[in-house]
Amino acid sequence: MEKEIPEISLQRLPVYLNYLRSLPESEGTYISSGAIASALGMGEVLVRKDLAYTKATGKPKVGYVREELVAALEEFLCCNNKKNAVIIGIGGLGRALLGYGGFKNYGIDVVAAFDKDEEKIGTFVADKPVLDINGLEGGLKEHAAQLAIICVPASAAQSVADMLSKVGVKAILNFAPVQLSVPKGVIVRNIDVAGSLSVLAAMIK
Amino acid sequence: MEKEIPEISLQRLPVYLNYLRSLPESEGTYISSGAIASALGMGEVLVRKDLAYTKATGKPKVGYVREELVAALEEFLCCNNKKNAVIIGIGGLGRALLGYGGFKNYGIDVVAAFDKDEEKIGTFVADKPVLDINGLEGGLKEHAAQLAIICVPASAAQSVADMLSKVGVKAILNFAPVQLSVPKGVIVRNIDVAGSLSVLAAMIK
Repeated sequence: MEKEIPEISLQRLPVYLNYLRSLPESEGTYISSGAIASALGMGEVLVRKDLAYTKATGKPKVGYVREELVAALEEFLCCNNKKNAVIIGIGGLGRALLGYGGFKNYGIDVVAAFDKDEEKIGTFVADKPVLDINGLEGGLKEHAAQLAIICVPASAAQSVADMLSKVGVKAILNFAPVQLSVPKGVIVRNIDVAGSLSVLAAMIK
Repeated sequence: MEKEIPEISLQRLPVYLNYLRSLPESEGTYISSGAIASALGMGEVLVRKDLAYTKATGKPKVGYVREELVAALEEFLCCNNKKNAVIIGIGGLGRALLGYGGFKNYGIDVVAAFDKDEEKIGTFVADKPVLDINGLEGGLKEHAAQLAIICVPASAAQSVADMLSKVGVKAILNFAPVQLSVPKGVIVRNIDVAGSLSVLAAMIK
């Protein structure tokens, strides 16, 4: 990309992509930034700025060719490059994510899980193997995984993040409600489901 | 609250709370905004501004009394007011969230789930009942639920959001990767797990 995209813009690209993919074929060849903005409740200038980071180019009056815009977003989000991810911690959430079909929309394959529980190691969930966390380094290499999703309890999350950083994982999606400390060069983003729900609760109080 | 808190600040309050709760007792009575900022990789001014929306008051040089700050954040996030939530759609993710213990840290009780699948209706998951989505209105009243978590496939999410809005739910946490359209007065926030992972992938590409 020519100009570095701000993370806040990057985070909106899947939103545009989801929206465009959800439109029926009958919606026509073109879509304008105004139509996207209005459907998503955003400002038109913002939408246009975000989309300008991709290769898509809109035409005055008519907007973007929808297929081209989808392709540009998919290219930007690497949907066409297969990437492998693993899940650490195969409790309820890890189990659900291992079986979740939505990752493939972004070219992501969740290939395996790791756990320390001997009863779980060696089993399969959604046809994916549950491996021994003590064999993390070899397992990640074997499965060519670059992304990891932490689904362990808060108390175990930092030690898992340490292990992942040590064996070269560069991007971690963390569901444990705890702030992880990682070396420079490793990116962590958090999804705190309960915290998000509490924010909603505070907004309607 | 005296001054309306911006949503971006509100979203950070659970992060502060998680961090403060994770500190060992031995860490001492006081904590400064600088220490919090440094631990969370944020700016000190930002932290101080965010915390100023709560009732907590820091003292020059020493900072906040930790217990008071925790209490102020908990009060702001209504952790002490019991709130009930329901889950719509009892697939893998719905099942995981129904059994997730982290909600109680925010005073939220996930009390029941709704589904349209007759095989699931009438069963219990993590001791919580799975109810018929056609009895949504009565079920929500019976369980005094004000919050809903949508865990149905993308194709069904809008009709679920319509049903929830119609029966008076004011806050929806949506896991379906689709933009929901809701009446004014209903708040929707999205968690797109696959989209978030694709953003991470794009950041390390």
